[in-house]
Amino acid sequence: MTGPLMCRVDPSKRNSGGSSDMTPRLSGFPEFEPTGRIIELSILDQARRVFELHGFASIETRAVEPLSALQAGGETAKEIYAVSRAADRDVEASIGLHFDLTVPLARYVIEHSHDLDFPFRRYQIQKVWRGERPQEGRFREFTQADIDVIGKDSLPFHHDVDLALVMLELLAQLPIPAPVLLVSNRKLAEGFYRGLGVTDVVGVLRCMDKLEKVGPDSTRNFLTDVLGLSQSQADACLALSRIETPDESFIAQVQALGVRDPMLDAGLAELAAVIQAGAGERPGSIRAALRIARGLDYYTGTVYETLLSGMPQVGSVASGGRYDELARDGRTTFPGVGISLGVTRLMSVILAGGNVQASRAVPSAVLIAVWSEGQRSQSNAIAQQLRRRGIPAEVSPSDAKIGRQIRHAERRGIPFVWFPATEDESDSIKDIRSGIQTPADAAMWEPDAQDLWPRVSSTTVTGV
Amino acid sequence: MTGPLMCRVDPSKRNSGGSSDMTPRLSGFPEFEPTGRIIELSILDQARRVFELHGFASIETRAVEPLSALQAGGETAKEIYAVSRAADRDVEASIGLHFDLTVPLARYVIEHSHDLDFPFRRYQIQKVWRGERPQEGRFREFTQADIDVIGKDSLPFHHDVDLALVMLELLAQLPIPAPVLLVSNRKLAEGFYRGLGVTDVVGVLRCMDKLEKVGPDSTRNFLTDVLGLSQSQADACLALSRIETPDESFIAQVQALGVRDPMLDAGLAELAAVIQAGAGERPGSIRAALRIARGLDYYTGTVYETLLSGMPQVGSVASGGRYDELARDGRTTFPGVGISLGVTRLMSVILAGGNVQASRAVPSAVLIAVWSEGQRSQSNAIAQQLRRRGIPAEVSPSDAKIGRQIRHAERRGIPFVWFPATEDESDSIKDIRSGIQTPADAAMWEPDAQDLWPRVSSTTVTGV
Repeated sequence: MTGPLMCRVDPSKRNSGGSSDMTPRLSGFPEFEPTGRIIELSILDQARRVFELHGFASIETRAVEPLSALQAGGETAKEIYAVSRAADRDVEASIGLHFDLTVPLARYVIEHSHDLDFPFRRYQIQKVWRGERPQEGRFREFTQADIDVIGKDSLPFHHDVDLALVMLELLAQLPIPAPVLLVSNRKLAEGFYRGLGVTDVVGVLRCMDKLEKVGPDSTRNFLTDVLGLSQSQADACLALSRIETPDESFIAQVQALGVRDPMLDAGLAELAAVIQAGAGERPGSIRAALRIARGLDYYTGTVYETLLSGMPQVGSVASGGRYDELARDGRTTFPGVGISLGVTRLMSVILAGGNVQASRAVPSAVLIAVWSEGQRSQSNAIAQQLRRRGIPAEVSPSDAKIGRQIRHAERRGIPFVWFPATEDESDSIKDIRSGIQTPADAAMWEPDAQDLWPRVSSTTVTGV
Repeated sequence: MTGPLMCRVDPSKRNSGGSSDMTPRLSGFPEFEPTGRIIELSILDQARRVFELHGFASIETRAVEPLSALQAGGETAKEIYAVSRAADRDVEASIGLHFDLTVPLARYVIEHSHDLDFPFRRYQIQKVWRGERPQEGRFREFTQADIDVIGKDSLPFHHDVDLALVMLELLAQLPIPAPVLLVSNRKLAEGFYRGLGVTDVVGVLRCMDKLEKVGPDSTRNFLTDVLGLSQSQADACLALSRIETPDESFIAQVQALGVRDPMLDAGLAELAAVIQAGAGERPGSIRAALRIARGLDYYTGTVYETLLSGMPQVGSVASGGRYDELARDGRTTFPGVGISLGVTRLMSVILAGGNVQASRAVPSAVLIAVWSEGQRSQSNAIAQQLRRRGIPAEVSPSDAKIGRQIRHAERRGIPFVWFPATEDESDSIKDIRSGIQTPADAAMWEPDAQDLWPRVSSTTVTGV
């Protein structure tokens, strides 16, 4: 229970859904209280809706993959969780928990290639696991929401543009600081390094990927002392990495560095297409940022990262790119482009911000009071009438004094208490926020739309 | 790719969403193709809706628990998957994947007891893992949908009745053979054995739980030879287990066996309350079945299992019961009652049946044709207009000949193709099922409600 993410809630606010608790008693494995889960569910629901409106089909893959497939990437090998039956602990485990949704997607596409129609547009919202050291914004178990488009043999470039816009459309709906999607292109960087006369292009890519962590001086030293670049080559690499523009002016800035290469030109044209479309559709939320490299080797073109305004320390909340050879099956190659949204990282930002609320801790809009245990069936019947008309309702768990039953509703943020008819009075409903009580008929009564289901709202507008 | 669950799809039917494939290339870890996933999502959506209409709040717990907690139950210890960082394989793992959602719930309730309001009504839909031998209806990774109500110190009995009705309400909406919820009561069985003069009551409970597996003769032998019951005691136990009634007549049948015990009477009364309410609300789908024991030790009262009519070999699709001491925290006891729906087992029944279809393989209701790559932005703008009005749409991935673009829609089951305006013609939309093409305006056009999203339907009505 330490660290900036563990925003314990002021008990006086808790029941209004004022905020929620993220309690990694097992370090790196966050869990939410019901109000936090309502906020998470609203993010997941919005993600699903945006993805499905854009024609992405849902899939889920199993949680485990062969260790050999998981470890093929190299860099994350030591973070993989191996899985073995507790009874056979001496047997070497051969499977592990997936650490992303891209490795499983590649395997799924190969296994189902004869049954899928390409280009295959899929979204996938699942937990992934990485045994890294827990720290701010990093977890050992977290939820990702991925969209990818996978082609067979080829995949038109316009999908690189589309995916950026879909993810920005989703991000713009969430109660988070304004997102800025930073885009670069592997061809641009690789072509630039080649045009510069660099031989170890992959080495420079990896080195530049660490620029933000280690700073420009160490990067320059590594480029010259370890990778053997000249001072002017190293300067040019660093100059390239400093280019960041909201429009296509990055092209002139790159050209001013005096490097010429056909692959560089291809990269500049691709990046320009993404930035141009983004500036038209989502002005201010997309930028060319040539320092973006993405460490993983399989990217071959567009690369994306997404920062939240004023929160660079959180890191990227949505990352991905183009991989021209995601999977290969004999003679067939499956190129793809994808972006992965870090849902748990967004949740950590939202909960730490403390300005996003769920309107209540339970789905119920109405608590049906119970006059006595002998009359519970009367209350049950009213609840069922409401539910059949789509109104979430629960029945008081006890026939305690009415004041206690009302407090039961208050503690959960349930806005209405229903009083079943008695010999003297007809059915009535009380809005316990205003105290106003009115006669009501369970076959007719409707709450205001905003009271029907728990709502998630933000006290300050931080989004775009 | 063997066994009755692996219903490979006739390729001619696949694209109409005719059925789906369950492909456990890693044995016991099922995955669905997109049409199968649409069916699964519709089950999960219905579960969520029914649970939330009844006021259950969603939670998720981490996938892992301490091995010590997982192994406390005993019986399933050898099925637990241990998890360890691949890099530290020599270090003894101390965590494992949860094998149900009840052990995690107990831990969650203890950890959050000061922040939750009791009785706490929660639902939880997550994957669980069991390293058992895969066979029909049994998986190593599967999805459960659990509802539980947890009290603090006490929990009124009426929740045992409520939970049975909530689960039956959900099951009645699903495209499955008619469900029959079988209910018994631990107090009834335990009181009966006590009243019979049995000393090893737990031993008899465990033995009777295996009755359906081993048959009456072996059970009788075990009761007499191993547990030391007399022939008449064993006969009485078997007679009790044969009692199954759709109404409260089980009481007279038990009493006719001539055993008297206060705990037996308490159990009879509780079971009668569940059966009476069920017969009123869901006639024909709830029965008292005194053979139901449930192997796990923590049940203390009501126990539930659910069979599908005509499919006893599938086993129970929804099971649970009352546990008066689910969790304990110093002086505080948390009693609970819950039922767990086996979503993956239901999916295996549905896919093997072959009579449940998704209307298409993708969310898109409309494919926007593209006249040429230079005019793609015109098609994108139409798609965005439709999406903003809640209509799922995708844009043709290429500017291939229109016939090919229509076949792209056909293969996915997308019902409509939109033709953007040209110099000569205004926008129009074609229903590719009927071939009828009409002028359309992207600011106004609406599909029939039944075509808006993929629908799941059953060719024969098998539910209640």
